[in-house]
Amino acid sequence: MSKQDIKLVKNAAGRMVPEEINGEKQIPYQGVGKYIPEGRRFAPKLSSCANFPQDGNKTVKDLKEALIKSGLKDGMTISTHHHFRNGDLIANQIFDIAHELGIKDLRWYPSASFPCHEPLIKYLKDGTINRIEGSMNGALGKFASEGGMAGVGVLRSHGGRYQAVQDGEVQIDIAVIAAPTADAFGNANGVNGTAASGLLGFALADSQYADKVIVVTDNMVPFPCIPWQIHGNYVDYTVKVDIVGDPEKIISGTTNITKSPDRLLIAEKTAQFCEATEIIHDGFSYQAGAGGTSLSIGIYFEEILRRNNWKARFIRAGSNKYPVKMLEDGIVDYILDGQTFDLEGIRSMRENANHVDTSPFTSYNYHSKGNFASMIDIAVLGATEVDVNFNANVVTHSDGYLLHGIGGWQNCLFGKTVILPIPLFRDRIPVIIDKVTTLCGPGELIDVIVTERGVAVNPLRKDLIEKAKKAGFKLKTIEQLKAEAEEICGIPEKPELEDKVIAVIKWVDGTVIDSVRKVKTK
Amino acid sequence: MSKQDIKLVKNAAGRMVPEEINGEKQIPYQGVGKYIPEGRRFAPKLSSCANFPQDGNKTVKDLKEALIKSGLKDGMTISTHHHFRNGDLIANQIFDIAHELGIKDLRWYPSASFPCHEPLIKYLKDGTINRIEGSMNGALGKFASEGGMAGVGVLRSHGGRYQAVQDGEVQIDIAVIAAPTADAFGNANGVNGTAASGLLGFALADSQYADKVIVVTDNMVPFPCIPWQIHGNYVDYTVKVDIVGDPEKIISGTTNITKSPDRLLIAEKTAQFCEATEIIHDGFSYQAGAGGTSLSIGIYFEEILRRNNWKARFIRAGSNKYPVKMLEDGIVDYILDGQTFDLEGIRSMRENANHVDTSPFTSYNYHSKGNFASMIDIAVLGATEVDVNFNANVVTHSDGYLLHGIGGWQNCLFGKTVILPIPLFRDRIPVIIDKVTTLCGPGELIDVIVTERGVAVNPLRKDLIEKAKKAGFKLKTIEQLKAEAEEICGIPEKPELEDKVIAVIKWVDGTVIDSVRKVKTK
Repeated sequence: MSKQDIKLVKNAAGRMVPEEINGEKQIPYQGVGKYIPEGRRFAPKLSSCANFPQDGNKTVKDLKEALIKSGLKDGMTISTHHHFRNGDLIANQIFDIAHELGIKDLRWYPSASFPCHEPLIKYLKDGTINRIEGSMNGALGKFASEGGMAGVGVLRSHGGRYQAVQDGEVQIDIAVIAAPTADAFGNANGVNGTAASGLLGFALADSQYADKVIVVTDNMVPFPCIPWQIHGNYVDYTVKVDIVGDPEKIISGTTNITKSPDRLLIAEKTAQFCEATEIIHDGFSYQAGAGGTSLSIGIYFEEILRRNNWKARFIRAGSNKYPVKMLEDGIVDYILDGQTFDLEGIRSMRENANHVDTSPFTSYNYHSKGNFASMIDIAVLGATEVDVNFNANVVTHSDGYLLHGIGGWQNCLFGKTVILPIPLFRDRIPVIIDKVTTLCGPGELIDVIVTERGVAVNPLRKDLIEKAKKAGFKLKTIEQLKAEAEEICGIPEKPELEDKVIAVIKWVDGTVIDSVRKVKTK
Repeated sequence: MSKQDIKLVKNAAGRMVPEEINGEKQIPYQGVGKYIPEGRRFAPKLSSCANFPQDGNKTVKDLKEALIKSGLKDGMTISTHHHFRNGDLIANQIFDIAHELGIKDLRWYPSASFPCHEPLIKYLKDGTINRIEGSMNGALGKFASEGGMAGVGVLRSHGGRYQAVQDGEVQIDIAVIAAPTADAFGNANGVNGTAASGLLGFALADSQYADKVIVVTDNMVPFPCIPWQIHGNYVDYTVKVDIVGDPEKIISGTTNITKSPDRLLIAEKTAQFCEATEIIHDGFSYQAGAGGTSLSIGIYFEEILRRNNWKARFIRAGSNKYPVKMLEDGIVDYILDGQTFDLEGIRSMRENANHVDTSPFTSYNYHSKGNFASMIDIAVLGATEVDVNFNANVVTHSDGYLLHGIGGWQNCLFGKTVILPIPLFRDRIPVIIDKVTTLCGPGELIDVIVTERGVAVNPLRKDLIEKAKKAGFKLKTIEQLKAEAEEICGIPEKPELEDKVIAVIKWVDGTVIDSVRKVKTK
């Protein structure tokens, strides 16, 4: 059965999704918390110390030798992580080697891909890579959107990626973990070395569950490499390279607050709403992003804390110099960090035991006995589109192009109050529409929309509406906001899409919440 | 088939071991590194966050409610850890509750048992507990040795315990993790609280693989409990109690160097041997125990390091104030700690990122891709008996009584040089004999025997013999040492044992290396 013939079914969100992709049966989305898995965790093969060097030295000559020793062959699943962001130098090398060896039909399973991975398009074209399962930002997303990828892409949240590996939904044959620092045994961390990126949490599932694990570093230290964020006990081979990542592209060095008056206004309104409804309180917790608007919101939150002589219990970060300063000033007890965005974040994680490196297991994995995403009081997130039912999209633009990954976005929707501070329109295209192009997050989990022209609260959150009223904080309905945008910009055009499904969006539980279709090209 | 009828087979060490125990087939020991497992890791059932409280509060009224909610029933396997040593207050409560509920035939799977667990004998007698799989020190060992236990005991090393759980050889139904500090979600650590014991590594496997996990603490802190040595994501229920452990019995407060002239002599000789053979060198590593002789050896090692202006790369501990001082003085880079033995050890682990909490996974698990036990340059260990083939016993006395656990002893045998500093005799009974009562460690892994009357090197270690000769360090043969002891004490009597197997000793790979027999009572 070719991809074009795959049967689509309507899922619980009313979206048409394939029953099967890439030859594997899929479970359509059933609603939030409705699908309860009955299986068991994936069980990797047992190893024996008898088959590993007693002196702990697992170093082989180069990445090619490590891949060959790992048994690289057609159809395998190769995973990488994205802690090096646009400074990753290893993923492209893996597929250069695969191409050189004549390997075909690989599944690339990155925790995210970046513009630096654009050179891989040639391997998607020549069949070295069958498909990418992971975010496809920029050029890769455009290529996939236009139907260039042989297989169907699968997008998962960070938590969903851990869940998929843990559940055996994705079985990784070879995990390549680029590490800022490692020892010859394979213990590795992200806090030391010239390519320091902070932590390696996105590679945790890969290390635990992959059949073969390769650690690559340019900073090989004598055993033990401490902290051992990745345990060498899971690692098969280690490789020393000259440069593992481009420091300037890993870390920007600066983190900038937005200068846009509209965005500043949105940030201020967000903070005012949170204060008025008392969801900021002594001991509260919040998710802080590293984007311009998020940073500004964090600064408003900090100001509220200082003014009231309150402390936050923890900040869920994406860390940078602002939460670090709060930690050092004692305004917050802990930073629970998933990725560091500047050098201050890395320094703090290295030096401060209360700046904690987390992983998608501790933070986001939905198929565990709880995770901390649902304990966060305020989650501030973005969206490319929101619809009148509060459903949101983070992966496609209004023209239908798949240009972003999900990140931790779906996982953070489980926060106690989820706020999307968004502009009413971008490039004169309204952001609030009738029906999102791609459904990434169900409206029932999205509580508040903050725009430069007003705030709308999900009618399900009667408590918040009540509190806002009591505090004299004026609300609008989401329909009002939509109408205002349309008055200015007109009613937006629908994207021109073909029937062909080029990717699917997984929900946090591994079910398929929506399909992404091929964009009609002229 | 009753236990008495179980067929015994001769294993690769020439020991007769049962083919089946407690209704489960066994693999006889096949030699060091010879048995390579072909299975997969045990796969616990998947969970869903949908079934756990969104606010992370898993606290139930008391331990009884937690056990009932966990489905406690006949024949289950209940695990506990021994970081509280003789100050454990929880294990006995579990079985009091089980008894009260009329539950029978439980398997208790502690990481070790202590004299404080003597009250459990009544439950071994009345059938509440079928058997203990874990060390049985003192009264419990005596009870088992005299045939009191219904099931057959199984003794494993710390690494073997992790391996057994990971491999699914032991499937834990309910793990009860007593924790000095925890949060309501189940994150837990050992470094804070009045019952601080340092770490919780012995409970790691239990948390990862048990069907149900209960965390019990007397120090419940708001989320997040940091460090989270145990991840709440694995935990089902949390329980707050008034006192979780008796601090005075957890930690002695003092750690004493031996005052015995013979033991001091043994310690000195050990250090002299290590220096003469150059197995101590700049950047070396060693296993340090907390017994009197071990402590003294550590102090000699420290003196050698200081005199040469050398540093140790790491100490594998059992930590106490001596290695902590070395760490703080910069004489060692890291302490890789498995359990802390005094308050200084706990303080250091809490304060110093280079004092690392390890687990049997990182240190000892033989069914992984290596572990660090084999990277330790010098492992100094004890023994109750050693035979002329360098085989050693750590669990039974020469009268056949099973009175000790294996601990990390078998795992540390993989160190580069393994030294047993032992007295030539104890209570006028020679320690070096023809054939050890119980085989715990194969002679090929034991390199050096140091006694107050001389040092014998295993003939397999030609390199060490050569180096000792070159340095003018006089050696004896093990036969010479044995003869000297017999000249003083006479030839020791053999223990009087029945045929009945009351326990078996597992090797690090899960195979059965020896059987322990019932002691003939008058």
